[in-house]
Amino acid sequence: MKLNKVLIYGMGLMGGSLSLAIREIYPKTEITAIVRSEKSKKSIVEKQLAHQVFTISETTNIQWNQYDFVIFSTPVATLLEIIPSLPKTGETIFIDLGSTKQTIIDAVNKHFGENEHKYISTHPMCGSEHTGPESAIHGLYREKLCILTKPKLAKETVMESVKRFWESIGSWTIQMDAKSHDETLAYVSHLPHVISTILVNVAGNNKTTMDQVSSIAKPITGGGFRDMSRIAGSNSEMWTSIFKENRYFLQNSIDDFIKQLTEFRNLFLEESELDTSKIHSIWDLALKQKETIQKTK
Amino acid sequence: MKLNKVLIYGMGLMGGSLSLAIREIYPKTEITAIVRSEKSKKSIVEKQLAHQVFTISETTNIQWNQYDFVIFSTPVATLLEIIPSLPKTGETIFIDLGSTKQTIIDAVNKHFGENEHKYISTHPMCGSEHTGPESAIHGLYREKLCILTKPKLAKETVMESVKRFWESIGSWTIQMDAKSHDETLAYVSHLPHVISTILVNVAGNNKTTMDQVSSIAKPITGGGFRDMSRIAGSNSEMWTSIFKENRYFLQNSIDDFIKQLTEFRNLFLEESELDTSKIHSIWDLALKQKETIQKTK
Repeated sequence: MKLNKVLIYGMGLMGGSLSLAIREIYPKTEITAIVRSEKSKKSIVEKQLAHQVFTISETTNIQWNQYDFVIFSTPVATLLEIIPSLPKTGETIFIDLGSTKQTIIDAVNKHFGENEHKYISTHPMCGSEHTGPESAIHGLYREKLCILTKPKLAKETVMESVKRFWESIGSWTIQMDAKSHDETLAYVSHLPHVISTILVNVAGNNKTTMDQVSSIAKPITGGGFRDMSRIAGSNSEMWTSIFKENRYFLQNSIDDFIKQLTEFRNLFLEESELDTSKIHSIWDLALKQKETIQKTK
Repeated sequence: MKLNKVLIYGMGLMGGSLSLAIREIYPKTEITAIVRSEKSKKSIVEKQLAHQVFTISETTNIQWNQYDFVIFSTPVATLLEIIPSLPKTGETIFIDLGSTKQTIIDAVNKHFGENEHKYISTHPMCGSEHTGPESAIHGLYREKLCILTKPKLAKETVMESVKRFWESIGSWTIQMDAKSHDETLAYVSHLPHVISTILVNVAGNNKTTMDQVSSIAKPITGGGFRDMSRIAGSNSEMWTSIFKENRYFLQNSIDDFIKQLTEFRNLFLEESELDTSKIHSIWDLALKQKETIQKTK
């Protein structure tokens, strides 16, 4: 894949970190950034995250074909507005870093129709509760998984090039179809963000807890709460966008969660002794499944 | 407080790490451990966590008064069986590391009746998903919070001594009554463990997720799931005991969680557009409350 000129459209933590990764591995690449706000533009200039940077209002009629590689690092909703304007011919390879896939793949398939094209949807799994180009970090993509999703008529050779690109900056790759991606991500990423956020609000709504919290200068929480709340409330615009795009599977995952939590709650309904063997079996199952999911055993 | 002879009754991660802390700050103290299993005894000998160690079956009629300081590091249920056998007079100071307080305080108040005594209940907030004396670590109690709960007739000077003991090994202390402790801990510790465990089981019960998990040697989860699942399924015996002891407040916290999660789920009920401003306000509230609870702002 040629990487003389790269455009990163939308440059927050993910796009900014990707710029750092590209500059490390491909030092000759000229990187252009397009961002929404003057604030981001200023951060990008200060951190030298791109050779040139424009705000959206400074750009009209982007000449996509002047770039070898265009990386969309915007909310999915923004991307869906851009896809219909992409050129249907030319050598430019397009990727996005979208957190959901079905609506992107549908838009790409619709836009390119029966034409072969060079658009691959990708999802590097390395978000953070931090945001903005000022949070960009070196090595963000190293030893992280990047999920690749191929639209129907994307060229197989382009798929291979994009795979090699991600691997060249240190990521592992796996291919998933859009439905498998969105359903799996609902359970391992989107639901956890909902749960973390609700957990903080439930604690925050308990008067005794907040009275105790305010009675001492140190946190009364241990490592469990700290870890469980790390992602709470982060990046509301991005998550609202993700929830919209992945509404169906997110709903299912929340329903599954409410069902299992209600079953657990019902163990406490009886006045009699707790069914401790049932609790043990729920705990043991979680331990086993955690090892399977996290590949720790 | 005299610390010539200390007994740590029950020596897992917490008791073992406390032994390391005592040996560091009070090198002349002679530490005795009593544990349930031969396996624990072996680990304690290997890691030199005590000067002498006995299994429960090797000890009959413990002479509590030969120790200056007795630390109970057992499940609360075990502790509740021991409290009625403690001497009502003597110089020995007793503490426990129990994760719930009301049932312990009730048992202590009942046992000592109208006598002044030297039993203080404490709760160092530094658990871990690891267990057993082999997991004991140096510095576990440094810069951690220890909650102190005073039974009705515990001597005020003993309370002061116990407070100074914890501070001498590097902990911060705060005093809470039993009810405030148990209610607060339900929200910031017990509920998070339930939620983490259920989250893993919900993901583990989704076929698409598990198919994808098994299709690659690397984990497909990002940092969010990893953090949210760290405490899942850990230490089922201890947690079952905690849930029993703190049944009332745990139930309330789960009910609060189901209520807030159901309200969130209901935002998706309408066929129409998502109420994104409502999601933003839930997220913003969580961000604010997280900062308040964690004292990061």
